[in-house]
Parts: sequence; structure tokens; C-alpha cells
Amino acid sequence: MGRWQPDARGRMAKAALELYSERGYEQTTVAEIARRAGLTERTFFRHYADKREVLFAGSGELEELFVRAVAEAPESAAPIDALGVGLDAVSELFEDRREYARKRQAVITANAELLERELIKLASLSAALADTLRRRGVAEPAASLAAEAGLAVFKVGFQRWVLVSEERGMAQVMRESLDELKAVTAGA
Amino acid sequence: MGRWQPDARGRMAKAALELYSERGYEQTTVAEIARRAGLTERTFFRHYADKREVLFAGSGELEELFVRAVAEAPESAAPIDALGVGLDAVSELFEDRREYARKRQAVITANAELLERELIKLASLSAALADTLRRRGVAEPAASLAAEAGLAVFKVGFQRWVLVSEERGMAQVMRESLDELKAVTAGA
Repeated sequence: MGRWQPDARGRMAKAALELYSERGYEQTTVAEIARRAGLTERTFFRHYADKREVLFAGSGELEELFVRAVAEAPESAAPIDALGVGLDAVSELFEDRREYARKRQAVITANAELLERELIKLASLSAALADTLRRRGVAEPAASLAAEAGLAVFKVGFQRWVLVSEERGMAQVMRESLDELKAVTAGA
Repeated sequence: MGRWQPDARGRMAKAALELYSERGYEQTTVAEIARRAGLTERTFFRHYADKREVLFAGSGELEELFVRAVAEAPESAAPIDALGVGLDAVSELFEDRREYARKRQAVITANAELLERELIKLASLSAALADTLRRRGVAEPAASLAAEAGLAVFKVGFQRWVLVSEERGMAQVMRESLDELKAVTAGA
């Protein structure tokens, strides 16, 4: 069991998404996921707490990247524009994962349990962004409101970007959503 | 069992919150909630699907009230200001329930399962508000972004309003949060 398994995490995440898409989330077992990835159940549980968590393998990376980009945005940037820098950074991460993101979103939308976990992850991301803004000297409630607004852009932009009819890149869709949010909150 | 039980729903919600505050959510059984409310377990399950749901007894009323106020806002109101009318309406509903709201929030924050359910309810509220804005002729993605922004104000304002140190009324806290959101998205 101690053998080195190149990208075991990634292989299991890929296998899980394939199986969830083919047969449905409910109908898939951890044993089947491990088998498809050419690994053991024990290896699965070394990397993921449960069948849900395997679909959120990338959420730590997403949060880290988003937070770092906001933290490192030019000091002069207003909170909402620091979040814009973060949206640019995460767009780059997703740009070549569109097919994966589409499949994943379809699986998550179809299952209440998965949707719950997704909402928890997004709430954690929002809290981390608010914290990052406070470290940049933004007071409350401005920090929390800006973080929630940035997250709204991410959620709505993401839903748009995964549409089959949407051909533009994620960075462009996100920037447009951010502009749209600014317009709509300005009372346009 | 067929006897008329005045406000059975409300009595059970009150009993549940008391017990969850005293002993913790995990440690409380449905039988205990029913007993404290002077009702039977069978009556409990006639009103609530489970131990979680009893804490969300008011979420339907909240959504209905919020949606109706937004739908009936002056036709000339911009989307964000129609949401402001909705926030005024729900503030009125909550104004005399501050102690209840404080206790409830403390119980929910302490339990991951309850937090999940809360997030699901808020996501449903956001979807209902976006739908209401679309019926007012607001296009996408503006409708979804405005709804998410309005919900951000509600969430952040609510957290502030339940603070023991916060003495101002909910309507005032909400209006201030909305103004703050407008300022922060304008790049202030």
C-alpha cells in the first residue's frame, strides 16, 4: 500500500466524475471508483473522506489561488477590483477544464447532497475572501459585503460559462459579470 | 389525534429551539420536542419532515413576503431598489423576533448540518428573487446578480442585527448594509 501512486487523487476524481455521469451519484460505490482508477478502496479513503468529497478535490486549490490573488492585488485597488484580480486568476485555472466543469456541474445540480456540499464550499470561500479583505485594511461590513458580491459574480459567471451555448472564455465572462454587477448595484 | 391544536407548528418550533439551546441539537429527540410542546410525536411529523426542518418553520413565510414585496415595488424602481423594498418588508417581520433570531442563529452556527440546511434555504430564496426580477422584465445575468447582491445584504445585515452589541432596528441595519454594498461595488 505504500507504493507511490502518481496523481492518485486526480485519477480518482476523474473516475468518480465519469461514473457519476454514467450511472448517477447514488448508484456508484467507492469500490467502483477505486477500481476504475486502478487503485484500492483504502487508497480512496486516504485521500477523500467520502463519496461527496471526491468531487470537491479542487476546492482547496481554488480557494488558495483566489485568496492569494486578492491579497497580492495592487495596494491601491478598491476591494471590488481586488476581487476582480482574484476572478482573473481563477479563470486562468479553469480555462482548460471546461468539459470537466460542465460534467461536474451537471452531476452536482442533479443531487441535493452534492448541492449542499457545494454551498458549504462557497460559503467557506466567501469567509476566506472577507478575511483577506480585512487584512487589506477593509472595515466591516464592507469586507463581508464585497466578498459576497465577488462570490455572486463567480457563481453567476460560472453558471454562464458552463452553458453549452457559451463560447467565450471564462475570464471574459467573469469580467462581464463583474461589470454587470456594478451596473445593477448602481441602480441601472 | 384529530383535535384542533392551536398553533401546534409554532409551539413545536419554540420548544425545539429551547431544547437545542439548552442541551444541543444532537442531544435532543423529536419525542422530547413534542413533549415540551404538549403534543405527540405523530403531530410533530405531520408538520415537519425532521429535526432540522423545525428550525426553518418561518422560511416559507420569509420567502413569500420578500418575493411579494419585490414583485409589488414601484414599476419605476431599479432592480436593486426593488430588493430594498423587499428588505424593508422582511425587516418588519423580524423586528419583534430579535431574541428568537439570536438564539436560533447561535444554534445554527454551532452545527454543520443546520448550517447546510440554512444555505439551501438561502439559495432557494435567491433563485425565487431572481425569478421575480425576471418577471419584472430584468434580463439575465442582471436578475441573478441583483438577487445575489440583495441576498448578500440580507445575510450580512442579519448577522450584524443579531449581534448583542447591535441596538438599532433591523430595517435601519439593512438599509445601511445596502448603502454600503452600493458604495463597495462602486469601487469606494
